[in-house]
Formats: sequence, C-alpha cells, structure tokens
Amino acid sequence: MSAISPTAPGGDSRPGRIMTSEMAEQPAVLRRILEEGAPRIREVAAAIAAREPRFVLLTGRGTSDNAALYAKYLVEVLLGRPAGLTSMSTTTAYGAKPDLTDTLVITVSQSGGSPDLVASTRAAREAGAITLAVTNNPDSPLADVSEYHIDVLAGPEKALPATKTYTAELLTLYLFVEGLRGVDGTATAKELPALAAALLERQGEVRELAKRYRFAERLVITSRGYGYPTVREAALKIMETSYVAGQPFSGADLLHGPLAMVDNVSPVIAVVPDGRGGEALQPVLDRLRGRGADLCVFGQARHVAEASTGFVLPSGVPEEVQPILEIIPLQLLAYEIATARGFDPDAPRALAKVTQTH
Amino acid sequence: MSAISPTAPGGDSRPGRIMTSEMAEQPAVLRRILEEGAPRIREVAAAIAAREPRFVLLTGRGTSDNAALYAKYLVEVLLGRPAGLTSMSTTTAYGAKPDLTDTLVITVSQSGGSPDLVASTRAAREAGAITLAVTNNPDSPLADVSEYHIDVLAGPEKALPATKTYTAELLTLYLFVEGLRGVDGTATAKELPALAAALLERQGEVRELAKRYRFAERLVITSRGYGYPTVREAALKIMETSYVAGQPFSGADLLHGPLAMVDNVSPVIAVVPDGRGGEALQPVLDRLRGRGADLCVFGQARHVAEASTGFVLPSGVPEEVQPILEIIPLQLLAYEIATARGFDPDAPRALAKVTQTH
Repeated sequence: MSAISPTAPGGDSRPGRIMTSEMAEQPAVLRRILEEGAPRIREVAAAIAAREPRFVLLTGRGTSDNAALYAKYLVEVLLGRPAGLTSMSTTTAYGAKPDLTDTLVITVSQSGGSPDLVASTRAAREAGAITLAVTNNPDSPLADVSEYHIDVLAGPEKALPATKTYTAELLTLYLFVEGLRGVDGTATAKELPALAAALLERQGEVRELAKRYRFAERLVITSRGYGYPTVREAALKIMETSYVAGQPFSGADLLHGPLAMVDNVSPVIAVVPDGRGGEALQPVLDRLRGRGADLCVFGQARHVAEASTGFVLPSGVPEEVQPILEIIPLQLLAYEIATARGFDPDAPRALAKVTQTH
Repeated sequence: MSAISPTAPGGDSRPGRIMTSEMAEQPAVLRRILEEGAPRIREVAAAIAAREPRFVLLTGRGTSDNAALYAKYLVEVLLGRPAGLTSMSTTTAYGAKPDLTDTLVITVSQSGGSPDLVASTRAAREAGAITLAVTNNPDSPLADVSEYHIDVLAGPEKALPATKTYTAELLTLYLFVEGLRGVDGTATAKELPALAAALLERQGEVRELAKRYRFAERLVITSRGYGYPTVREAALKIMETSYVAGQPFSGADLLHGPLAMVDNVSPVIAVVPDGRGGEALQPVLDRLRGRGADLCVFGQARHVAEASTGFVLPSGVPEEVQPILEIIPLQLLAYEIATARGFDPDAPRALAKVTQTH
C-alpha cells in the first residue's frame, strides 16, 4: 500500500497517518477552544448581539457548509432568529445585491482562502451586513475582509479530509450562538473533550463495522434535526476518502421519494440523536426496517438494539452539542473503509487542500 | 411487464402511462398559468409587496423543496432580498419560535396535505410572518392555514413522481417573484408552452441517451446557479423511478470533496445554463473531463459538442426561466431509464402520493 502514499517525513508512509493524527487531536482542540478561545468568542458575540441582528445568513463550502448548517439549527432553535444558508452563486455569478441591513452574515471556512467566500463576504459587508468569519486562519483574506473574526484554534490541518477543523467549527459556533443570547455555553460543553477521547479509543469497534461496507457501492445516511448536519458531513468524508456514493438525507426528505431506492441489499446508516431529533426519526426507521434495509444505527443502546448493527454513542449529552461528538466515529468509519480498500485518506485523488471556487 | 403495473381504466396498463400523460400536459398547464393564473398571482404579489417583507423563507419537501430552492434564487437575484430555506424540524421537532415580523414565509406543496408543512406554516403565521401557500389544491389544510394562497392550476396529479406540478410551481413562483417587484413576467415566459411541447416531442432522443444508463448504479448530476434546482429535481426523479443513486451537486460543492468519487467509469450529467450559471460551471466541466468522467451535457450545442454526449436545449431563453424547460428532458430520462429496467414509474415501490411527515 505504500506505493500509493505520499512520501512522509521520518519515513512513516502509512496511508492515512496524517488524518489519524489530526482526528486524534480533537479532544485537545476542543479543550483549547473551551479554555483559551471562549473569552474571545464571548466578546465577539456580545459586540454583535448589541447590534441586534434580525436575520442570520450562513455561508460555507464542503465541510464548513455542514458546520454552517449546524449553526443554522442553533440560530433557529436556541436564538429564535430566522436563518438561511447562502446560495453563493447568486452573488458571485449573478451579482445579486440584497439589502442586508440588520443581517448577520457568518462565513465558515477552514482556510479562509476560497475566492468565492471572500467575494461574497465583501459583497455582504458592502450591502450593510454585520460580517463574521469563522476560520482556522486568522491571517486569511476572509478574516481580513470580515468585520469580525473568530479563530477556531485547530492548528494547521494537513490531511485533505477535514476532521479537527469540523469539530472545532461546531464547538466555536455553538459557543458563539449561546453567546449571542448571553449564555455561557462552556458549562454544557465541558465534558466534550473527555467524551471525544473515549470515542477515539473505540477505533477497533469501527474497524469491525467497516468490514460490512468493504464492497458497498453506495450508502444512504439519514438523521433528523441536529443529526442532519452530521450525516451530510459523514457522507462527504466517505465520498472523499472511500469513493463510495454517500447519500445524506434528512429522514423526512428520504420518505419524499428517495426511499424507493432502498431495498433489502441497501446499506443504510442512521444517526439517531438522543432527544427530539431521534424521536422524529423513529417513523423513518420503521419504514426502513419495513423495506428490509440493512440498518446500522449510531445512537443510544436502545436504538442500536433495534437495528442490524450499530455503534453506541455516549448518553446524557445535551442534544444541541451531540453533533460535536457523533461525527467522530463516522470520521473513523470513513478512514477504515478507505484504508481497507487500499486508498490513502490523507490525499484523496483529484483534490487539493484549498479548493479555489469562484 | 403488466404484472407490475396498476390496473388502469380502459385496460391500458402500460408502465408509466400516467406519468407520460402528466408530462405531456405540461405545455397546457404552463399556458393555463400564463392566461388564467397570472392575474391572481399579480394580485397576491401586489398585496404582499405592499407589506414590504424584508426577508423570505421558503419551505417544501421533495419536488416542492426543489421548486422552493428555485424561488430562493429568484428572490436573491431578481428581488434583492435575503432568503433562506426552512429547516422544518426546528419548528416541528424542537418548537423553535423565531420572530418572523417582516418575513414572508412561502410554503410550496403539491397536495397541501403534509402535517409538518401545515404545522410549520401555522407556527410561522403565529410568529408574525406573512404566509403564502403555493399548492395544487386550494381546498387543502395548507391553503386554509395560510394568509395567502396561490393555486398552481396543474389539475389532479396521479402518478407518484411529480412532473407537471413541478413546472407549474416553478412558473407560478417566477411570476410571483416578478410581481413582488412590479414586473409582469408573462412576457418573458410567453414562449415556454411551445418550447415545452417541442421538448416533449424529442422523447426518442432521450430514449437513446437512457441506454447509456441501463446498468448504472449511481449518477452524479451537477449544475450551478439557476440550474442547481434542476439537478436536485432530476436526481430525485431518477432515484424514485429508476432506483439509481442520483447524486446532485452544485458544481462548486462537487469540487469540495465529492469529485474524488468520480473516475473514468463514473457517469456524470451536467446541466449547463445558457448564461452566467453555465459560465461559472465551466471550470467544473474541465475538472470532470480531466478525471476522464463520462460527461453528458444538457445545454447549448457548443457545450454538448465538448462532452461525451448530450441533449441540446433551446437557445435564446432568459436564464431565470430556463429551469422551467430544462427539467423536461430529465423527467423523460428518468421515465426511460425506469421503463427500460422494467419498473413502473407511475407507482414506485415503497411510496405513497401524499407523504405524511411530521
């Protein structure tokens, strides 16, 4: 397998060693955000809250778009403000100039370098928006063009599949949205670093699960509510590392048509949030079982017991921060499927770390 | 093949005969909207414009969600207002109560009957929103709960895959958004019925194209800008009739990870808008060709000529109404792949016409 790996300093050329080490950093990154990042996040949130934004627009691409979707749920549920995800081409291709007075535009980007994100953020600021960049690079063009900036403090990310920057973006956005309503989210989030570390120790369990998907061509991944960004991110990790056609659906959307694809040889992964999202998903799980689907549940023990197989997630975690944890075994799953197939998840074919879209 | 078809009145039990007749009605439905529906649409638009909404939220499921996405582009580009798609579970599962003063909430639904749409629209109205239902059923619970209602006038739809209600929703939403800014869109749209009829006459061409996908397991479908709702709807039609894993991506999102899935045995369909969306898609098409993908282009002759194969769309149509036409050959493609595989597109397995999600 070393033939397909990049040459690594120190002679370590195992496929996926960079992704592995970056996944392993997640507990430390989460701790850093809680200990060192939180005061700055609170300060930015207080400054923005004082300007009383009425609407929130969120922008990102790829992994950061999934983090933006998570923040959309937080804004609607916790903050009680209407929110939308930006269709970036309306600005960059069509030159749309919406009036953005009273509107907070949050742009999420690992690198802060993609030209379309910089252009759309600049346009938003010119159109009257309060602009905030959430990036892993305080020296980036995006941070520069935004009125406010929060650094997610994940440290340099070298593997192409983003892992530690995703969970760092989620926790940062959680603390920020709580900060907008004057709540200190660090109390709710304080167990996350230890729980993340415990999940990473269960890689052997995930390796067993991955065997099931060794020859899968496609994989439906479904959830609802707070779990929906997780399945979009999981599908993206699986597509970019294993080249399996990952298809993420909110459970409700799955019932509106795509369910017809699912039969008794279709692998389905369900992420079942411990809370209202999981309750809302139950009718979908019943329908999937009725179709004879091979159902693998990431969720509480009682839900895993009703499926073909699964992975038990920690209990007692507030639903709004569960996404910060539940993606971790799915990152591991993408890694394990990819390496079992002989691919190097550090350097997926056809991709570059900073994607330049316009 | 009659064994898998529903019993039909008059003894006609050919698979897909209902879908065929409903696709064929599209020119007449578009004409009906332009001639009979337009005055009512203009009237509702004027009444809502007078209330000066600042922000537009759009809600739908399945096909109607794709129509809602089209309207989001119109609102941002033509009207210059910020817009978002609703994450319905934030209301129905989490009980979010955002302040929706000055916000127009548009709910799009063929049947107007899904409980979650009714519940979220009721909640929006209670939260201060201006509510508009766009449905094919003026007697529906959704029409009843909304302050304003526009009937898309498509007539009863019986096949499970929505076709004529989709194009009817698109044209209705186009005329409505133009109406919000005081423009009569019927002039721009007046050629659409005849152009739709001409597309339907080219079913033989599509049947030839469909042979290429007879044994495909998955199909990436990509576009940008106004073409993005089209590829989402095309993927949905293909999933629900042919059970192929259709994967729709905006071209920019495709480059942020999923491109790694594409290799020289991967079928890719690109919908290339004639205009700025198509221009923005060019670097994506170059990357796909570089990956050796089998690329089928639905677009202008010059773009089709650069692909492995394709389907030439009519020229000279303003970009913002092209989606009303370009979906038609893709509906035909879904039908042709399904029937070639011996499936009955009128009645996909596992689905019911009115999907009850909560």
